[in-house]
Amino acid sequence: MQHNIKLTISYDGTRYHGWQSQKQIENTIQNRLETMLTRYIGEEISLSASGRTDAGVHALAQVANFHTSQDVDLEQLRNAFYEYLPQDIVVTDICEVDSRFHARLSAVSKRYRYRIWNSPQLDVFQRNYVWQLPDLLDVSAMRQAAEYLTGTHDFLSFCSLKRMKKSSVRTVTDIAITERKIPYGKELLLDFTGNGFLYNMVRILTGTLVEVGQGKRLPGEMPDILKARKRQAAGMTAPPMGLMLMEVHYKMPDTP
Amino acid sequence: MQHNIKLTISYDGTRYHGWQSQKQIENTIQNRLETMLTRYIGEEISLSASGRTDAGVHALAQVANFHTSQDVDLEQLRNAFYEYLPQDIVVTDICEVDSRFHARLSAVSKRYRYRIWNSPQLDVFQRNYVWQLPDLLDVSAMRQAAEYLTGTHDFLSFCSLKRMKKSSVRTVTDIAITERKIPYGKELLLDFTGNGFLYNMVRILTGTLVEVGQGKRLPGEMPDILKARKRQAAGMTAPPMGLMLMEVHYKMPDTP
Repeated sequence: MQHNIKLTISYDGTRYHGWQSQKQIENTIQNRLETMLTRYIGEEISLSASGRTDAGVHALAQVANFHTSQDVDLEQLRNAFYEYLPQDIVVTDICEVDSRFHARLSAVSKRYRYRIWNSPQLDVFQRNYVWQLPDLLDVSAMRQAAEYLTGTHDFLSFCSLKRMKKSSVRTVTDIAITERKIPYGKELLLDFTGNGFLYNMVRILTGTLVEVGQGKRLPGEMPDILKARKRQAAGMTAPPMGLMLMEVHYKMPDTP
Repeated sequence: MQHNIKLTISYDGTRYHGWQSQKQIENTIQNRLETMLTRYIGEEISLSASGRTDAGVHALAQVANFHTSQDVDLEQLRNAFYEYLPQDIVVTDICEVDSRFHARLSAVSKRYRYRIWNSPQLDVFQRNYVWQLPDLLDVSAMRQAAEYLTGTHDFLSFCSLKRMKKSSVRTVTDIAITERKIPYGKELLLDFTGNGFLYNMVRILTGTLVEVGQGKRLPGEMPDILKARKRQAAGMTAPPMGLMLMEVHYKMPDTP
């Protein structure tokens, strides 16, 4: 009998070349998991994830699934993950799901968080998880700009790929900016929720919002950036370490 | 004119062999700082710290001082620290202090925090900063045991050094155990405040309290452990990564 196993995975992306296995790049999170699963289960396992994450980007709860004809004891598999995976990859949940479940295709929406450490004083314990910007940002201008970017738009200006064969229209249902007090400044948490994100989209959205916060752009310029449908119209690509895939939402019930 | 400069230093101890420079071990935090300062100031600089930290132990606010005959611009020195130190060592405060100030001898008390991740589910982002214990500990028994250990005692049983030339009597003014909810369990923060700590003392106190939490020892056994004045009488040495030097308290005013 065929089984479809769904994994929820937490990882520190600092020392990996991103999620996705690529030719001649072995050091990816997908590769680590597939190699371990293939050895453990004894048949070639390939994972489908909810989406890729770039080198240096983290995940609190990435979701992936795989099919196997073996009867896998999930409790034993959980222990095997603890034993054989490197310390910076942890499988936090394992369950068997309906055969039609697909981590990417079944996903309804996702939430990414970008953390900005807006203080001249860096916290050594956060160095791999935040973008440090010493000069105080204008958060209220950033919130105004975020409103323009929320909704259903063609986000081609916020995509690093030169050519998009498919539609670049996506719906961003929410961009929430939360502030937390930290020594000599504040931490900004930018939470992006949407039905899908283009390549580098969250990082370019963040970079553009930061330029608004720095006074280099006005919130009212956002509609023109969207209209341009050109990467050059938008702001910089924020560095990877501040980004974390927080959760993936599914409509379909998990159980088979 | 001689200057006495006081530094407050935050570091992630994960990849270092502890604070103190030792023969043939270059990879210490003290060594990184002294090498950088000696080059920058142009004269041999040696640092006195409030105390050592072991390999893998962290500091939120270690304090150290050094004497120099050079007129050092502290603002420029701050920038030099940012530029030349590795990312996991950050000098968070620099000031000139009275010539009599000594980071260790002037210290009145210190606070260490030991973090226990008491949950079967590890958080990858905390892996270098906590001791993970999957089985739930009896916190109320640990608090009772902590009461017995608070106060002025001969802590020789809680010291890894075989021989102590000087007194092993110390005053622990407070052991506070705070609980924080985390997925599938709780995080325990053990805060130890005292006028001084012997070698490995906080880690052995923690290891012993954990054995009480596991039901292997009773709170009422603590007085006998103290009385024994033997390392074997106490519990295990907790692993280094859960420990952080939080703050050092001084009575003497900082300004010259």
